Amino acid sequence: MALVNGLETNLVSINDRGLLYGDGLFETVLVHAAGPCLWRQHLDRLEQGAQRLAIPSPPRDLILGECARLASTEAPWVLKILLTRGGGGRGYLAPARPEPTRILMRYPAPDYPPAWQEHGVALRFCQTRLGENPRLAGIKHLNRLEQVLARGEWTDPQIAEGLMCDGRGRLIGGTMSNLFLVAGDVLVTPAINSCGIAGTVRSRVMEIAAEEGLQVREADIQRSDLEKADAAFLTNALIGVWPVRQFEHIPFDLGRLPGSLIERVRRAAFTPGGWRTG
Amino acid sequence: MALVNGLETNLVSINDRGLLYGDGLFETVLVHAAGPCLWRQHLDRLEQGAQRLAIPSPPRDLILGECARLASTEAPWVLKILLTRGGGGRGYLAPARPEPTRILMRYPAPDYPPAWQEHGVALRFCQTRLGENPRLAGIKHLNRLEQVLARGEWTDPQIAEGLMCDGRGRLIGGTMSNLFLVAGDVLVTPAINSCGIAGTVRSRVMEIAAEEGLQVREADIQRSDLEKADAAFLTNALIGVWPVRQFEHIPFDLGRLPGSLIERVRRAAFTPGGWRTG
Repeated sequence: MALVNGLETNLVSINDRGLLYGDGLFETVLVHAAGPCLWRQHLDRLEQGAQRLAIPSPPRDLILGECARLASTEAPWVLKILLTRGGGGRGYLAPARPEPTRILMRYPAPDYPPAWQEHGVALRFCQTRLGENPRLAGIKHLNRLEQVLARGEWTDPQIAEGLMCDGRGRLIGGTMSNLFLVAGDVLVTPAINSCGIAGTVRSRVMEIAAEEGLQVREADIQRSDLEKADAAFLTNALIGVWPVRQFEHIPFDLGRLPGSLIERVRRAAFTPGGWRTG
Repeated sequence: MALVNGLETNLVSINDRGLLYGDGLFETVLVHAAGPCLWRQHLDRLEQGAQRLAIPSPPRDLILGECARLASTEAPWVLKILLTRGGGGRGYLAPARPEPTRILMRYPAPDYPPAWQEHGVALRFCQTRLGENPRLAGIKHLNRLEQVLARGEWTDPQIAEGLMCDGRGRLIGGTMSNLFLVAGDVLVTPAINSCGIAGTVRSRVMEIAAEEGLQVREADIQRSDLEKADAAFLTNALIGVWPVRQFEHIPFDLGRLPGSLIERVRRAAFTPGGWRTG
């Protein structure tokens, strides 16, 4: 089931700038019967992205009302929200008064192997690079061809994720996840000033780490930094935390992960709150 | 009027990867009553882009048949072709056997001031940068947020176009056009190995210049190179050639343009051929 500007339909105009130019944003939210996870973070990021792209944000109450219509008791499910600049003629110039399109979709929750949470995942290195653009960095916009090409580099179902660099060889993250390295008592995560996405779980890691007395540094990270790290893990809203078991041929020690932090981050990522807490 | 996979409709699925990720390509073709302009170049580029993105190309005969249904006697008009990877579930991984979506749209021809052809255009410099990605450079894919943001930097209708640099400060072209500098008997145009689009008129300029005994160099161009150039012009399939009259506060001499070349390029860009010549 899906709603486009509040109407139950699976169709959108071919003149929508989301299709023509990727002129829009999206969010992917894990939802339990009791409500959505990290809901405030998702709504905040959507609004920050809309501000960056100068797309008017729909009122939160409007989104909440539509989420209530979409909500399913067959939990957990995935709510995908798209917000585009809406219709427009041919040409890049946006209408002076855009009428955004909001699309809410319900998907089944992904069925990743449970072992990936517990025993970690195997990663590969992707050849596809991320272009740098500070104006687009951090937000979850609809220009995702780089991720599509990178994800197309492997079909082996044993490989859970691929890591991507920018053009200067700096590791930025996975095709769909943020990366954290563990170096003693310090967590290091790639800076996302020129590309990459400011993940909702990523920000919770940074908050919880501070509470746990762990230092977190946002830094330029090379592939060799990962290879030398004590441990590593990935985060996103649907996976929570995946420990890294192996990157290419290099094994990682799950025993050196900050267990208490990871437990708390998982709880933060997987515990539903109310729709109204947003 | 528009056709989506051969059916007359203005709607497309919200699960189309063109919308979800900008996972597709487009072409913008000028069409006269007698037929399309630069048709072979457009079809070639569409197929090259599809090959790069591993999207199956529709047979040319299929496109030709649909163009015939779309063709209007109210010429000139603009044919916009979109080719996306088609539907797919949530997530970047593409279906093993994609069923592409092809969309053909008919737009009115743009009504640029005729003086822009004859007396040249005023350009500005855009702050929005182009991210570098060799795998996406040259092809006309649907990830166009950078162009949208750049085009959003001005509203003054006297400014015809804005020029964009990559992150390293190299001039790449206009938001919707290719750039040529004139330096004596040499034409210089930005290399498009890491970003930018291989324009259909751009390639005709290079062919015609060779016939005219003019040297053409693809090179890294700085803003200062443009400022020192004898003359400059822009090209695309709808504008043909626009001489540059002014860039920011710097005036340019239209008298130093290679007049014969420009006349021939315009003829190449604006002379319709048959649909079957593709």
